[in-house]
Amino acid sequence: MSHEYFMREALREADKAYLKKETPIGAVAVYDNKIIARAHNLRESKQNALLHAEIQVIDKACKKLGTWRLEEVSIYVTLEPCVMCAGAMIQARVKNVYYGAKNDRFGAHQGATRLFDVPFNHPIHIEGGILEEECSSKISAFFKNLRSS
Amino acid sequence: MSHEYFMREALREADKAYLKKETPIGAVAVYDNKIIARAHNLRESKQNALLHAEIQVIDKACKKLGTWRLEEVSIYVTLEPCVMCAGAMIQARVKNVYYGAKNDRFGAHQGATRLFDVPFNHPIHIEGGILEEECSSKISAFFKNLRSS
Repeated sequence: MSHEYFMREALREADKAYLKKETPIGAVAVYDNKIIARAHNLRESKQNALLHAEIQVIDKACKKLGTWRLEEVSIYVTLEPCVMCAGAMIQARVKNVYYGAKNDRFGAHQGATRLFDVPFNHPIHIEGGILEEECSSKISAFFKNLRSS
Repeated sequence: MSHEYFMREALREADKAYLKKETPIGAVAVYDNKIIARAHNLRESKQNALLHAEIQVIDKACKKLGTWRLEEVSIYVTLEPCVMCAGAMIQARVKNVYYGAKNDRFGAHQGATRLFDVPFNHPIHIEGGILEEECSSKISAFFKNLRSS
């Protein structure tokens, strides 16, 4: 399967968030070329600061694989991860992170800070710009809607 | 109640982790001068990378207060928070963070990186060195024990 295939699945998750009036961000976790976890942002619905899409896929992937070491897992997420989610990826020793849109204000890769450049004991391969236009316009549409409602 | 009082409660949590053969780190969340959540590291027992003490107290505090905004909550934790936990504190807009021992390898305040200096939209008051000696020696004793077993 291609990066675009998995990002489209993450975008489907983002759509679920959109329908719940959440900022539309979705993620999937991939192991052995299969999706083992899917999630979308639920911060407002559940009133819980931890419930970004990435935190939830990491939680589900740990439970699914029965280990906290996600060394063979790739995460696809529609938006550049924030510091919390990037830190969780580092803690879980995720192998690859692929994201869609940039997050200039809160991103931990190239936005607010460059966390993946810090020499932690576990280097992660991270790459942005996968279906960037679609990921980005979904979020812009959400905020445009919010402002006009 | 004093900082030392709350840190002693966090240390009691760390003891619970120790008994479960987890790295002994504990935390409490305080609101209106009362402890509203307690937790200890459960990463190995639950095989889940997210289960640092701080993540669990943030989760519990959000559930207890029914909001993701922990703007009046202080967190006491026996060890300097890692990037994931520091990021979660920023996301949850925690008011104050007090920690005991420094974490030279993974700390996000003064260890591996200086995350609290990044100008996010929510500045957090963070202070280390509360019962530092007790917090630090509990962790050293654990690793000494581990190496000799």
